[in-house]
Amino acid sequence: MPIKRNKAMVYLSTQRIEAFSDGVFAIAITLLVLEIKVPHLEGSESLWSALGHLWSSYLGYIFSFLMIGVYWANHHHIFNLYKKSDHYFVLLNVVFLMCISFLPFPTAVLAAYIADEPHRQAAMTFYAFGLLLPAISWVSMWLYAVKGHRLVDPNLSPAFISKTTRLFLLSNAMYFAAILVSLWNGIAGLILCTSLTLIFIQAPSEPTYIVENINDH
Amino acid sequence: MPIKRNKAMVYLSTQRIEAFSDGVFAIAITLLVLEIKVPHLEGSESLWSALGHLWSSYLGYIFSFLMIGVYWANHHHIFNLYKKSDHYFVLLNVVFLMCISFLPFPTAVLAAYIADEPHRQAAMTFYAFGLLLPAISWVSMWLYAVKGHRLVDPNLSPAFISKTTRLFLLSNAMYFAAILVSLWNGIAGLILCTSLTLIFIQAPSEPTYIVENINDH
Amino acid sequence: MPIKRNKAMVYLSTQRIEAFSDGVFAIAITLLVLEIKVPHLEGSESLWSALGHLWSSYLGYIFSFLMIGVYWANHHHIFNLYKKSDHYFVLLNVVFLMCISFLPFPTAVLAAYIADEPHRQAAMTFYAFGLLLPAISWVSMWLYAVKGHRLVDPNLSPAFISKTTRLFLLSNAMYFAAILVSLWNGIAGLILCTSLTLIFIQAPSEPTYIVENINDH
Amino acid sequence: MPIKRNKAMVYLSTQRIEAFSDGVFAIAITLLVLEIKVPHLEGSESLWSALGHLWSSYLGYIFSFLMIGVYWANHHHIFNLYKKSDHYFVLLNVVFLMCISFLPFPTAVLAAYIADEPHRQAAMTFYAFGLLLPAISWVSMWLYAVKGHRLVDPNLSPAFISKTTRLFLLSNAMYFAAILVSLWNGIAGLILCTSLTLIFIQAPSEPTYIVENINDH
Repeated sequence: MPIKRNKAMVYLSTQRIEAFSDGVFAIAITLLVLEIKVPHLEGSESLWSALGHLWSSYLGYIFSFLMIGVYWANHHHIFNLYKKSDHYFVLLNVVFLMCISFLPFPTAVLAAYIADEPHRQAAMTFYAFGLLLPAISWVSMWLYAVKGHRLVDPNLSPAFISKTTRLFLLSNAMYFAAILVSLWNGIAGLILCTSLTLIFIQAPSEPTYIVENINDH
Repeated sequence: MPIKRNKAMVYLSTQRIEAFSDGVFAIAITLLVLEIKVPHLEGSESLWSALGHLWSSYLGYIFSFLMIGVYWANHHHIFNLYKKSDHYFVLLNVVFLMCISFLPFPTAVLAAYIADEPHRQAAMTFYAFGLLLPAISWVSMWLYAVKGHRLVDPNLSPAFISKTTRLFLLSNAMYFAAILVSLWNGIAGLILCTSLTLIFIQAPSEPTYIVENINDH
Repeated sequence: MPIKRNKAMVYLSTQRIEAFSDGVFAIAITLLVLEIKVPHLEGSESLWSALGHLWSSYLGYIFSFLMIGVYWANHHHIFNLYKKSDHYFVLLNVVFLMCISFLPFPTAVLAAYIADEPHRQAAMTFYAFGLLLPAISWVSMWLYAVKGHRLVDPNLSPAFISKTTRLFLLSNAMYFAAILVSLWNGIAGLILCTSLTLIFIQAPSEPTYIVENINDH
Repeated sequence: MPIKRNKAMVYLSTQRIEAFSDGVFAIAITLLVLEIKVPHLEGSESLWSALGHLWSSYLGYIFSFLMIGVYWANHHHIFNLYKKSDHYFVLLNVVFLMCISFLPFPTAVLAAYIADEPHRQAAMTFYAFGLLLPAISWVSMWLYAVKGHRLVDPNLSPAFISKTTRLFLLSNAMYFAAILVSLWNGIAGLILCTSLTLIFIQAPSEPTYIVENINDH
């Protein structure tokens, strides 16, 4: 008689999802350099001056590289807490990767227009929006996974879960605030985004567990 | 006396094929963003308006990202059923990856011409054709693998195999229908392709086995 | 007293080299699609006609994809025979990957000029040269590894080693012949290269061993 | 009572960092070929002559490919010595990868301007600077890891650590010297960079340990 196997066996393991995500992170982060174009000299311009004019491309490269690098590190931190996956979790992760892979585009737009007075503000708002997208899909994955401890380690302490949820929602609110601020003043929005990145570069807090004995983990 | 080793030892393991395929999936999916070009403003156009005109590029990006993401997830589902590989199976997988890697091109064509009235229909048909190619090579791999239970788990129930074969052939027929529909009306073809993708995003059905005891799996 | 560890422990394992090589193969094979550019329509040209004019790009894509795919599969076959690595072997593998990664360029040149009568012959010769480069570095790795059974499985039969060496040298000679033929006639060179690829797509022959008992492998 | 788990469990394993770094290395090395552009023939120029004019692109490709390849091999050598990681070590590695991923850009600038007399010197200095960046971040990781034997194998002999530190600092000094030399004479700077690469292509020296018994390693 045909029988069904344990559903969990067919679902993608979190390890597989991590490996694929690592590939996408590595490619998205490396593609950023393609947005820095070799300058074409005009008239008597020196190569140094032309390379100097690319400062906004260098800044965008460094900034987006750090952002994707931090997301990569955090992806591993958080996947240590995810113990199972299901079909919709895989889809949410694909959507998250879609937002990460999109980052080279707003980065290129920012680099192209940040020194262009009338368009700077729009470029900055668009970039802040590009940073908000992965933040939103990141918190969606987390909320989906912790609902009823569905996919996370069942021993995670409720206090740690609530604290992390609050932290993730706060980061969403802050990127949203960065969009609003950049609508008013592009430079202020850029400074806010940079500060947020510097905050997120800090080491994440340690998870806490409700078990007393951790030896069997 | 020189002797032959077991042939299966030299063939690529399905795990290796999966790892390589994951690499190609990750790159193809991430390259899609390169098709969204930073807009060059003309005259008094605002950056927002120029970014808005790229809506077809964003749509193409999202749509093809989801398609490749779904193929990636399904590739793992189905490779759980493949237990062995042989030389021609490896070649069929290379051909399948060739079709997946090709997707950024019809996506870029669609994005470039979907808003261009006289060329929209051709762009749409070409895109539907681009979606048909991986579907064809996907079903070819399956048919090759299940013929005489050659490469799949020998305990897979015949009912599950027939059902899956019918499902895959149906999906081929539907993408072919999308081509025909798009020849008549580009927008209708696009809607059909989108619906197909939404269907394929659903969780695949569980495999069934002829064995009663699954503990030794 | 400071002592030296076993040198082999510090050298890269063949598994690491394979994983890195797989990454380069996956990227080189996927980058090929970037050489197919979205056509810009001129005058009253239809999109179908413009897409049709890209036939040489499609051919180049398919041909180079198969070549890299076959090299990838063969790389795994042959790495089953390599049991150790050393510093110069790693460097030879880097040079081999350099030749594989270069392939998208001659492919793009071939696609751009194969339909351009006066330049077709040069494009064809350059492409055949692009195929010869990985073939040369491939045989160099093999010759370095088998010299005194340095890096290969010590139980490989001498007959198998000589046969494989002859086969690899023959393939080098044939690609060199393809260069000469293409100097005389571009189309003939293309046909020869295609035939060679079709030959190499065949399953490689099985290794033979001098041991009688293979259970402990 | 909620308790904290061992901090080390949550930090990224050095294996994970290596796998991600390998991905970035593989992509950066393969992207180099994209900087070689298919030539557009003008007037009666032959394709051979146009392909010949790309000699600087070929040189840049070979040179940067070898540099990244050598860094990749050395990354594995050195990660055999790193036994733990922490948050700031992960960040330092991200910064190192940022410098490696940047290399295709100075390579493209060098290829574009090395044959352009008035700009050659600037292109060469910029390229030497591009080589100095990964060298600096490389030594930073090492200094951070060995401080108080924080992250390295605690049995590494102090003599080996000091010797390696001196070697890494020397390589920084030499790339800095290459910048100075190239400011005076571009060709001399190029020759110095090439010589440095040829030196670094040599096999690294073996680590030594303070333990007498190495069997339990």
